[in-house]
Amino acid sequence: MDVLKQKILSEGKVLSDTVLKVDSFLNHQIDPVLMQEIGKEFAQRFKGFDITKILTLESSGIAPAVMTGLTLGVPVVFARKRKSLTLTDHLYSAEVYSFTKKESNEISISQDFISSEDTVLIMDDFLANGQAVFGMIDILNQAKARIAGIGIVIEKGFQEGGKKIRQQGYHVETLANIAKLSDGNVTFKKEETCI
Amino acid sequence: MDVLKQKILSEGKVLSDTVLKVDSFLNHQIDPVLMQEIGKEFAQRFKGFDITKILTLESSGIAPAVMTGLTLGVPVVFARKRKSLTLTDHLYSAEVYSFTKKESNEISISQDFISSEDTVLIMDDFLANGQAVFGMIDILNQAKARIAGIGIVIEKGFQEGGKKIRQQGYHVETLANIAKLSDGNVTFKKEETCI
Repeated sequence: MDVLKQKILSEGKVLSDTVLKVDSFLNHQIDPVLMQEIGKEFAQRFKGFDITKILTLESSGIAPAVMTGLTLGVPVVFARKRKSLTLTDHLYSAEVYSFTKKESNEISISQDFISSEDTVLIMDDFLANGQAVFGMIDILNQAKARIAGIGIVIEKGFQEGGKKIRQQGYHVETLANIAKLSDGNVTFKKEETCI
Repeated sequence: MDVLKQKILSEGKVLSDTVLKVDSFLNHQIDPVLMQEIGKEFAQRFKGFDITKILTLESSGIAPAVMTGLTLGVPVVFARKRKSLTLTDHLYSAEVYSFTKKESNEISISQDFISSEDTVLIMDDFLANGQAVFGMIDILNQAKARIAGIGIVIEKGFQEGGKKIRQQGYHVETLANIAKLSDGNVTFKKEETCI
């Protein structure tokens, strides 16, 4: 997705060979117009998949997921990273380790909002090691929901997550797939559109 | 805002005289079409305020804020509830106590995204005791930004936050202001549109 890649090239900050900071439009400050474009792009790519719900993870997944849900005409459920007092039981949960934050979180959703009747699009802002996506797959398996595919805004294609997920047969759509981060530069892969 | 009030009446769950659960369309599952309507409503109410940025708080503030930002044509910044490893210093921070979660969090934003040049609309999903809004006011005062006003999706008008904030002279727009929660029923106040 060219407009996203241009934004990454102009505003992304390469902090190391593994860390790309996109806080100016996705992870801290959000560009709503770009999110709308991202939503339209995912809706186009997953058109005809009979999606009934989108599942994402707080917080940075919410904006692109809501814009995609708006275009597809389906609700978005965001998994929470810890239990709150108003969501105490009746949950599907999974353990997710964040390599960025070096901590483990339980992610969970209420059993009220995803069921075996649902065909779900999993979405997230970043895909690196795949921990968050595997956590969401785990949750959807508990709910016996069908997984339509996985929509990722930015994939770190040089890490293992995308490969592992595709090897398990999931359809992954990545809007900007990064081949390499080095010397302050971002090199993109060609877009992955195959299973 | 009638469509929101109808949604609260049909899907909200009154768990006690102080707790209203709206997990089916705002706080856990999100209704993107309703969020778009909410965004348009806030944009209409704050038209002419020369807003340059929206400040909200993760996670439930993000969806309504992004939709408002889309209509107003301005970026959204969401304050984070704890520091992450990629956002370690160069922050404006404030302490916020959550009565719902019975815990204190530090909320913070990067100094990169709000400055003394900005006129900011503060947004949040709920207003009860006002702790989160006062935290965001604190942050904006540190940044020397102008505060255009405060946009709240659901106000618990029977708690003190809204009164305290209005007494300090802030312009507060509330889309659904609740006078009372009792016996499973929600009673709304008239909408507050005055300073």
